[in-house]
Amino acid sequence: MTRSRQLRLGAFMRPVSLHTGAWRYPGSYPDANFNFAHLKSFAQALERAKFDAFFMADHLAVLNMPVEALRRSHTVTSFEPFTLLSALAAVTERIGLVATASTTFDEPYHIARRFASLDHISGGRAGWNIVTTSNPDAALNFGLDEHVEHGERYHRAREFYDVVTGLWDSFADDAFIRDRESGLFFDPEKMHVLGHKGEELSVRGPLNIARPPQGWPVIVQAGQSDPGRQLAAETAEMVFCSPRDLTAGKALYADIKGRMEAIGRDRDHLKILPAGFVIVGDSIEEARAKRATLDSLVHYDSAIASLSIALGHDASGFDPDAPLPSDIPDTNASKTGRVQVLKLAAEENLTVRQLAQRYGGYAGLAFVGTPASIADEMERWLDEEGSDGFNIVFPYLPQGLFDVTERLVPELQRRGLFRSEYEGTTLREHLGLPRPENRFFATGR
Amino acid sequence: MTRSRQLRLGAFMRPVSLHTGAWRYPGSYPDANFNFAHLKSFAQALERAKFDAFFMADHLAVLNMPVEALRRSHTVTSFEPFTLLSALAAVTERIGLVATASTTFDEPYHIARRFASLDHISGGRAGWNIVTTSNPDAALNFGLDEHVEHGERYHRAREFYDVVTGLWDSFADDAFIRDRESGLFFDPEKMHVLGHKGEELSVRGPLNIARPPQGWPVIVQAGQSDPGRQLAAETAEMVFCSPRDLTAGKALYADIKGRMEAIGRDRDHLKILPAGFVIVGDSIEEARAKRATLDSLVHYDSAIASLSIALGHDASGFDPDAPLPSDIPDTNASKTGRVQVLKLAAEENLTVRQLAQRYGGYAGLAFVGTPASIADEMERWLDEEGSDGFNIVFPYLPQGLFDVTERLVPELQRRGLFRSEYEGTTLREHLGLPRPENRFFATGR
Repeated sequence: MTRSRQLRLGAFMRPVSLHTGAWRYPGSYPDANFNFAHLKSFAQALERAKFDAFFMADHLAVLNMPVEALRRSHTVTSFEPFTLLSALAAVTERIGLVATASTTFDEPYHIARRFASLDHISGGRAGWNIVTTSNPDAALNFGLDEHVEHGERYHRAREFYDVVTGLWDSFADDAFIRDRESGLFFDPEKMHVLGHKGEELSVRGPLNIARPPQGWPVIVQAGQSDPGRQLAAETAEMVFCSPRDLTAGKALYADIKGRMEAIGRDRDHLKILPAGFVIVGDSIEEARAKRATLDSLVHYDSAIASLSIALGHDASGFDPDAPLPSDIPDTNASKTGRVQVLKLAAEENLTVRQLAQRYGGYAGLAFVGTPASIADEMERWLDEEGSDGFNIVFPYLPQGLFDVTERLVPELQRRGLFRSEYEGTTLREHLGLPRPENRFFATGR
Repeated sequence: MTRSRQLRLGAFMRPVSLHTGAWRYPGSYPDANFNFAHLKSFAQALERAKFDAFFMADHLAVLNMPVEALRRSHTVTSFEPFTLLSALAAVTERIGLVATASTTFDEPYHIARRFASLDHISGGRAGWNIVTTSNPDAALNFGLDEHVEHGERYHRAREFYDVVTGLWDSFADDAFIRDRESGLFFDPEKMHVLGHKGEELSVRGPLNIARPPQGWPVIVQAGQSDPGRQLAAETAEMVFCSPRDLTAGKALYADIKGRMEAIGRDRDHLKILPAGFVIVGDSIEEARAKRATLDSLVHYDSAIASLSIALGHDASGFDPDAPLPSDIPDTNASKTGRVQVLKLAAEENLTVRQLAQRYGGYAGLAFVGTPASIADEMERWLDEEGSDGFNIVFPYLPQGLFDVTERLVPELQRRGLFRSEYEGTTLREHLGLPRPENRFFATGR
């Protein structure tokens, strides 16, 4: 059984997981940040399960956090995504490879070249997650004294995108003749010199690399601000987002697809894949117990700071083993955050410690249950246009990943919600995206 | 039989070869610029022959040449070296991986991070060829209207090196505890915030990556100007150079090793490996015939331009099939170049066409002969301190490479001039280089 609309599944990866307590979970690989063999086994397992893409998150600085949290965090250091994905390209055959790269702290010629090269090496499996880098500490690593302002970052990002895609179009797809007899290697009339001179960037070109197999690597966008959504509607082919529930997901989905239609883009030419944290159990209770175990591995000193931020109130004086006090004084800060905390505390009947550990671990959209219950929920997101699929966040590795690939995916496949075989060879083909025309050379030339 | 001093061998690679006519040679792979399978087979063959390193040349622009040469050149486009070497890291186990990266057109945080990451992925096999990028067209691809002046490039390069090596030392080798029980992942006292504020660069740090397995990836330098030699003596661990003969090689070798001693560096802590173009035949005559065939594949229109440059005189009016005229008028330009051309013309009795094709193909230091005759020559370079080995330039691929790995290398091994097995696992160990101390954390902390 297949359905006309199927889920697209990315794996949103950090080597040890995004969850702060994951490295302490039984069976985890605490050394995965610098152990390539582990990453290779993860990517190959995801490929066996026919995932669309392996998506590597990134930072351009050591994250700024209190030393008590920092010393307990496995997220401080890991492989650089480009080197990692290039290495994974050599040991996989079908799965897409999405790398994050910043338009604020890099050069379009470098970015265009590396993604084109990854696309060639992988046979058309590269994707570029365009980020403008919101971490202000990154600026200090790149010669600036203070962070580049949000609007300016997005202005540069838009122009940066134009330059990078223009550089990818430097050569017609059929520019390279390689005729031994005549000695003609390529046709210079099928090479375009970009000659870009804009407000932010000046780049002559041409790129010193043939047009990528996909035409352009797949464009991914993650910003949820108004300029972020607009940039996505104009340029993106996959959106990575973090709605907290189906209602929020549907609103975001309708907004971005609506923006696309307003500028004349086909709404199917962009796939919206929210982050979804997945814990699979034999029963819903067992899955929740796994989550409770995982959360309990977040140290209280770092957890309580996260809860205080979510509440907009210092929670360090509360009794850790009692429910949240009902008399927390109102502040102006973070009304929405506080409503969320209170709702969660009531729904799951959590103590202050458990709440803190949830916020210190992973507090975003989660699917915690059996293969059948999670498939039900995901099906609903698809049917109600909350998303086109998910970027799965694994709670811990490797078992949390195997629980998805070996238990959840077969259930999705049985329902016709997910492919049982790759239909094509490129990331574009996996996602059902068209290959972009070369803006300087008509097809067939 | 082994000797106290052995040759070190790098492979100086472009996917199709550096020789302009190589893509037309019988059995060549004209599509190798974007065919990863070929590059993988080359790297694995070099590893079977126990080569020290696979060294990828690079450019940051399409090379500026007349359209008649451009359309015949396979050197216009190819993989970006970082993505290529990362992919090769996943399919090799011992061979070193040296990538070129520019200090003029990139950021030290990016460079430090990518080389550290490649070093982690490859288990300590990364090397950084520091270039300042002499191609003026590159500047136009990076937002500048004109090229950065030579002295300024070297000034920035020196500071860039300090920042990159400082970032590599951000964490003590034993900073990562990963103690599940206590929940302590690393010791923040073993993390150093660089806080660099110099004349050219401002970089806070720390790098978000653990110290590389080699401490620092191997530092390679290729400049032969006075500031280039000084930078090499101060910082490099491998020098890539292009002396035209043994006399020039000995002078360069003595100069750089002398500069090292003048600043108190151990002369063994830098290996000087000139580019050496190698053609192996059953007889010297057969090897020369292969070279003549290869040179004949360089188109005359592009070849004659190269000869004109070498002569400092327009050669396009000369009879292609006659010897070089004896009455070329003197000019001020390029006296040394002209002397070289006349010497070569006399030695090998070449016509204008053959001379032009030599200069349009590859005119640097060459070893053309039998395994025994080439081993004799290389042994002499080693014994007379002309070099510590060579970066081999293959005339055409794949056969020109196999001729070296399957015929020359066994002869070198038989004479005890080259290893028969890798002694260690890292590029530093292959080259006999010490692992650098962390400048911020004493060993054993």
